[in-house]
Amino acid sequence: MRYLITFSYDGNNYYGYQKQLDKITIQETIETNISKILNTKTVISASGRTDSNVHAINQKAHFDGSIKDLSKFKHSLNSLLPEDIYIKDIKEVNKDFHARYNVVKKEYEYRINIGEYDVFNRNYVLQYNNELDIDLMKQALKKLEGTHNFKSLTKSDVEKDFTRTIYESNIKVIDNIVYINVIGNGFLRYMVRNIVGLLIEIASKKRKLEEVDQILQAKDRKKAGITASPVGLYLKNVEY
Amino acid sequence: MRYLITFSYDGNNYYGYQKQLDKITIQETIETNISKILNTKTVISASGRTDSNVHAINQKAHFDGSIKDLSKFKHSLNSLLPEDIYIKDIKEVNKDFHARYNVVKKEYEYRINIGEYDVFNRNYVLQYNNELDIDLMKQALKKLEGTHNFKSLTKSDVEKDFTRTIYESNIKVIDNIVYINVIGNGFLRYMVRNIVGLLIEIASKKRKLEEVDQILQAKDRKKAGITASPVGLYLKNVEY
Repeated sequence: MRYLITFSYDGNNYYGYQKQLDKITIQETIETNISKILNTKTVISASGRTDSNVHAINQKAHFDGSIKDLSKFKHSLNSLLPEDIYIKDIKEVNKDFHARYNVVKKEYEYRINIGEYDVFNRNYVLQYNNELDIDLMKQALKKLEGTHNFKSLTKSDVEKDFTRTIYESNIKVIDNIVYINVIGNGFLRYMVRNIVGLLIEIASKKRKLEEVDQILQAKDRKKAGITASPVGLYLKNVEY
Repeated sequence: MRYLITFSYDGNNYYGYQKQLDKITIQETIETNISKILNTKTVISASGRTDSNVHAINQKAHFDGSIKDLSKFKHSLNSLLPEDIYIKDIKEVNKDFHARYNVVKKEYEYRINIGEYDVFNRNYVLQYNNELDIDLMKQALKKLEGTHNFKSLTKSDVEKDFTRTIYESNIKVIDNIVYINVIGNGFLRYMVRNIVGLLIEIASKKRKLEEVDQILQAKDRKKAGITASPVGLYLKNVEY
């Protein structure tokens, strides 16, 4: 049988999602514990990787195995997992379902503290601790909606196709935390963090709003701005 | 000159507020760094101690020294302090001011997650992850308002006077987090955590509301209930 798990993690103590030699990753931690319960080496396939220190509110992954009682399995797995990874849901899916290939939409959220430094949120938001022009930020993000070549806003050079579509975006401020949400068909490496870096430069008047179009057209990472810290980034949702 | 600092800390990495031999404490961490800046051994006196893993949103302490530029001092101190302690404010006070003896009111806040387990909040709320009867909880807390002998709700046996006054209390629920606030003239050791433990037992129907009065009258810790975890407790404010 094939199963789909939905899980959350605090990325602070991991070298990202994807398995690496000699490094503690989310994938390996979950695989090891599923393998223990099922008593057979199990590999999980996620909707995509997240980088070091990036969090997930709802990451999804599939794996194959044989489970009698899903609710009991979820409970056992959560009791084995460290307290910074939590399985929210498990369900059976079709044998041809694939957690990465079948993704229709992904949503990321980025959080910026524009108020006073907050010790409790230090690993969960970018501590900008300064004013930002949210209206300018909203206008800049609007320009990125739709289908574009995002080569200027990714790190990757191995990728062949830099075209992605941002279906929806939204910015709101609650209690001095700026929440930036982007929903798209997929995101390139560092794309959300580079978008946020650019938005911060515009919202702090270091760059002009007009530069957004030029940056997209340049298809050159060097033309864009900073990469925002991973600690403010959350994979919020994956839709199939 | 005498100065009053207001500061916040994440209690997770400390053996409480008060200095102890061979243990990392909030007090020692702040004193060491103030001493570095002022170039003379400086001792700080706080409004009171907080236990291991207990947080502070606004703790206050005074110390004597000679500072030319308060804003520059605050900035230097924050840049030396670890990222889980933050000086929010510093101001000059009278030479006879005392951060402990002059306390008029203290406010504590306790946070309980009654929703699904949350990896991001694991060190900042009690993960109860179950329903609680908030109405019963409110009625129980109301019974504790006013002046009472709180011997049944403290750990301490060294204390002579167990009488304390709770001026105000409040319970609200936002996004599945229960916020319990108590304002009083002072709190005994473990008193807030023992109050919360009792509230949880009543709100989960393990004890009857009527037992609150009996417990207070018994003046016996063994008659009361559990001690709630320190991770949900915040010293929220100190008034002079």
